[in-house]
Amino acid sequence: MAYRHLARKKDRFLGPTAPRKRHPSAIDSIAELKSFPLTTDKRAHPLTDLAENNKLQHYESEVKGSFEKIVPLLQKISALQHDQAFVERAQKLAKAELGFELPKHILDKAWVRPLDMRALFAWCVFEAHKKSSNRFFNSDPLNGGVDSSRAKDFETFLSECGFHLLDVTPCSDGRLAHSIAYVLRIPFSSVRRRSHAGAMFDVENTVNRWIKTEHKRYRENSPNSAHDPTCYLKVVLYHFSSLDPSHQGCAAHGSDDSVAAASGLQRLLDFRESVENSFCCGASVDLLLIGIDTDTDAIRVHVPDSKSHISLEKWVSTADIYQETKQLSSDQAILRISEKVNSIVQGNISPGMIKFIIKLITNNISQIDYVRDLHDGPYPDAGHAERFIGVGIGFKEVHLRNLTYFAHLDTVEEGAPDLDVGIKIFSGLNVSRDLPIPVVVRFDYSGRVPGARERALSDCKRVDNAISSRYRKLVDDGLLHTCLTIRDRDAKDPAEVVGSSLDPAPQEEH
Amino acid sequence: MAYRHLARKKDRFLGPTAPRKRHPSAIDSIAELKSFPLTTDKRAHPLTDLAENNKLQHYESEVKGSFEKIVPLLQKISALQHDQAFVERAQKLAKAELGFELPKHILDKAWVRPLDMRALFAWCVFEAHKKSSNRFFNSDPLNGGVDSSRAKDFETFLSECGFHLLDVTPCSDGRLAHSIAYVLRIPFSSVRRRSHAGAMFDVENTVNRWIKTEHKRYRENSPNSAHDPTCYLKVVLYHFSSLDPSHQGCAAHGSDDSVAAASGLQRLLDFRESVENSFCCGASVDLLLIGIDTDTDAIRVHVPDSKSHISLEKWVSTADIYQETKQLSSDQAILRISEKVNSIVQGNISPGMIKFIIKLITNNISQIDYVRDLHDGPYPDAGHAERFIGVGIGFKEVHLRNLTYFAHLDTVEEGAPDLDVGIKIFSGLNVSRDLPIPVVVRFDYSGRVPGARERALSDCKRVDNAISSRYRKLVDDGLLHTCLTIRDRDAKDPAEVVGSSLDPAPQEEH
Repeated sequence: MAYRHLARKKDRFLGPTAPRKRHPSAIDSIAELKSFPLTTDKRAHPLTDLAENNKLQHYESEVKGSFEKIVPLLQKISALQHDQAFVERAQKLAKAELGFELPKHILDKAWVRPLDMRALFAWCVFEAHKKSSNRFFNSDPLNGGVDSSRAKDFETFLSECGFHLLDVTPCSDGRLAHSIAYVLRIPFSSVRRRSHAGAMFDVENTVNRWIKTEHKRYRENSPNSAHDPTCYLKVVLYHFSSLDPSHQGCAAHGSDDSVAAASGLQRLLDFRESVENSFCCGASVDLLLIGIDTDTDAIRVHVPDSKSHISLEKWVSTADIYQETKQLSSDQAILRISEKVNSIVQGNISPGMIKFIIKLITNNISQIDYVRDLHDGPYPDAGHAERFIGVGIGFKEVHLRNLTYFAHLDTVEEGAPDLDVGIKIFSGLNVSRDLPIPVVVRFDYSGRVPGARERALSDCKRVDNAISSRYRKLVDDGLLHTCLTIRDRDAKDPAEVVGSSLDPAPQEEH
Repeated sequence: MAYRHLARKKDRFLGPTAPRKRHPSAIDSIAELKSFPLTTDKRAHPLTDLAENNKLQHYESEVKGSFEKIVPLLQKISALQHDQAFVERAQKLAKAELGFELPKHILDKAWVRPLDMRALFAWCVFEAHKKSSNRFFNSDPLNGGVDSSRAKDFETFLSECGFHLLDVTPCSDGRLAHSIAYVLRIPFSSVRRRSHAGAMFDVENTVNRWIKTEHKRYRENSPNSAHDPTCYLKVVLYHFSSLDPSHQGCAAHGSDDSVAAASGLQRLLDFRESVENSFCCGASVDLLLIGIDTDTDAIRVHVPDSKSHISLEKWVSTADIYQETKQLSSDQAILRISEKVNSIVQGNISPGMIKFIIKLITNNISQIDYVRDLHDGPYPDAGHAERFIGVGIGFKEVHLRNLTYFAHLDTVEEGAPDLDVGIKIFSGLNVSRDLPIPVVVRFDYSGRVPGARERALSDCKRVDNAISSRYRKLVDDGLLHTCLTIRDRDAKDPAEVVGSSLDPAPQEEH
């Protein structure tokens, strides 16, 4: 198989904290290998935005790089722990290599008992996340913030396509955490993203969100008047693995992509029916089902027909389109994409929906080249390789593949199934190597609402307690650490750390 | 003190399952005793609706009576447990006295081990509740259903007063469970009731409810057009005890009525500020703060001034008004009430608000006579005397004092503080007498929303599991039983029982 002989030019993202490299034998027998554009032709597709790819690659490399440095640094520190002036040397090293210091109350104990490497590891993951999170909110490195011209342009485009809100549910899986900013290349602030295991979003919550959106249109003409004939667009992103479909697909759907797609579609239809049944006067929503190949980031778009009917069997695949249009000029390629999209279903599709889908496909072509260029083939980390679990409401700043497993929840009681999956994944990734599971709890709040900050704070503590009680053994063994953060979504400030399992006990503070 | 010598003519509601009678010594030294209209004059107030009082009394007596019969019946059954043909005799007795049979799989074990009286007690409480709940939904005994002319008239009246939605939060305390239908005499379907410990309602949830209400006005002109100058009225009902203020007030506020009132007002102001800050174009709400004396059901209305400012110190008291107007004609009495309400604050109060408050005061005068007539004085059960705990979302059918302790919650994780209070109350009421705590779990759902019934079902089970895990010892000792119910709020049908801790184990079914 050709794939075996491809040398991967960069394994730069495969730090020791997480990614398992794909074992070549795992794909030896895989018939679908052909679906990846494995061509010896190194040129990019004519529609690929190389400048954007470079920027994105730079950002990914920087952020993930900061996580990769953690284990090597801690290995050095471990070797020093009985040295004279250990604390000073350790701090100097940490500052130089990671850019932050280590917690003194933990280092101080090195003379009396073995250094708590688990605690130091969790500390470093939390600090690395904090650094990249702060940078995200302070300087908008992905150029997708609400004030960016990119976001403004996209919102104008969205409105021209006939949509006034784009609401996307990817799977919680960390391999989809970059769906918005990378796979689909949409400015993050222009999308409502709610990740759920298996992309199984909550119908009642989504109806509530729809009501809020419509109410703002009626009351404030924002983003447009309720009388404009635009729709709320709800998208489900399910996922599959073209290279190892029966093992590396969506765990929530037993790694069966037809089940993943069918379940996503059913949830979309339930949402539409809920809106239509609960409100009069032609209330409805638009729906779109998209599959993502987590090996290549190529997407499948299930184009809705003229009656908004979505077929599970009919899709356009950007992997195919990429191959078919690679040798064309960019104008010819766009024309070809348009023909493909128009011909996949019968009847006249809404021109706005066509325009929107063509945009997504074009954007995705850049991402196919991004993956190809970075790894000389599909992703080397075929499976889970997240660095931390994100729990709660928020995480606007997380847009990198395999950085975060999301458990979007208000309460552990309701979100336990999603969280259990995350804990299981990290038991394999970290606990099996004697490293703890880092959990960042986040509650975004609206600073304009009196008492909301205090409630977000107590939500963090409530969820932290519920985690401690549900995963008692891991916590007691130092194999699960939490960092509590809140963020005022009305302000444009970074998140605020409000507590951590690594805080010194009161008598330790000095 | 005169109170000691008053013979209570009816102790009919003091069944052995709950109410502690007020100990006379408890009120010997209470200065505020005078606040209760203790007059030897047995005539009712001219504004009292005696026919309505009779109907309400009949309903209360019937429903509470069905709970009172439980212990005497079980005492008889207990005495029979070793008799020949025990099961048949027990069923016959139960059917004759309570109107339902007992669970056969429990009775069947009487020959081999002592009868599980705790399980039988819980069963009877659940059945008594089911009977009264079914009756409520089937025949609208309080004449307050959505189709009743009373509800329609009240909604017209509400709209004339300038309000398009009435949203009331009483305390979870069972002594306020009759606030809507009895104390304020409002048709239950015309009010959104959400009980919370200390009346501390959730601001974010209430803002969401406000959005839904306004959206329906914009989209469906229901209940009126969004352009009509009416408001959403949010009412907090705090409570206090005029006879034993420092012990029988609101537990959530340390039995301090000034704290209860101040906290309620602050929550109201937070709600208004949230709406005003989150939405443009003059979005706002109207607020009203009312105190209830749980000894007499007399209310204090904190009349808002012309600038909608509510003073904690300025209220009109129906107890005072009752005394002052008792000798007048009904027309004179109404005039006097109007003068009182108008004079309590400075400036011109909104005529709609005045009209609404006068209505509440007039209604409440009937309730003062209701209590007086039934008990020849204040309530004999000064403290908690609830029959079961209601947990979840719903319970439209519960409108009797001291019948139910409400813990209005989506999750035990969030609602634990409210639920813990309920468990503590029932530890005193029931567990101390070796009787179990009966917990009815309810999740209302919208039948028009696909999958909502299944979600309500799994919400019930989730909450049931969380209760079992939080109160493990009580459950293991048979001292806490649960009955799971769901109800389609779009249909007008009774609730549906979907499970119970009393269900036979699978091998027991036959």
